[in-house]
Amino acid sequence: MSLDLSLYDKIFENRVRLQIMSVLMANEEYDFSSLKDLLDVTDGNLASNLKALEKEQYIEVYKSFVDRKPNTRYKKTMKGKSAFEKHLSALEKLINHVK
Amino acid sequence: MSLDLSLYDKIFENRVRLQIMSVLMANEEYDFSSLKDLLDVTDGNLASNLKALEKEQYIEVYKSFVDRKPNTRYKKTMKGKSAFEKHLSALEKLINHVK
Repeated sequence: MSLDLSLYDKIFENRVRLQIMSVLMANEEYDFSSLKDLLDVTDGNLASNLKALEKEQYIEVYKSFVDRKPNTRYKKTMKGKSAFEKHLSALEKLINHVK
Repeated sequence: MSLDLSLYDKIFENRVRLQIMSVLMANEEYDFSSLKDLLDVTDGNLASNLKALEKEQYIEVYKSFVDRKPNTRYKKTMKGKSAFEKHLSALEKLINHVK
């Protein structure tokens, strides 16, 4: 019985990070307040999980001003995209193994 | 864009617990040392994760003696089976959403 989870990435062992990466996989970029609304999480929860992904270089941060208000946008990196795809394929293998 | 992870269960936010439940879904029961070999984890790591699943009543523990040696076996509960199936379906929805 293969239980190979070698592609499983501990960084994604978290609901909010799974959701953040899903959004960034499906979009070119996404800003902080839109992410916060979409995921329905607190500023602190979102910020700490974005920080963890940034620290791994799985996402990149872009700061600018929109109508003179600070705007922070996030994008996936190639490294993040690849790591997340591997993590999902590990989970998918586990799911198919159980079903 | 639906990111509904309401069926996502924080208890399964862990590689070893995912593997334990997969094994117990595919088998009537499994004993401690066989689980340890299969998952290639330390006694302490396996024991603490089994304890967490037991505390949630997702698995049951059966202690007996085999050839006068203590033998501890584990079985999934109906509650555990249902929670794990829901968790996997939440992950599956997320995976299909990203692909």
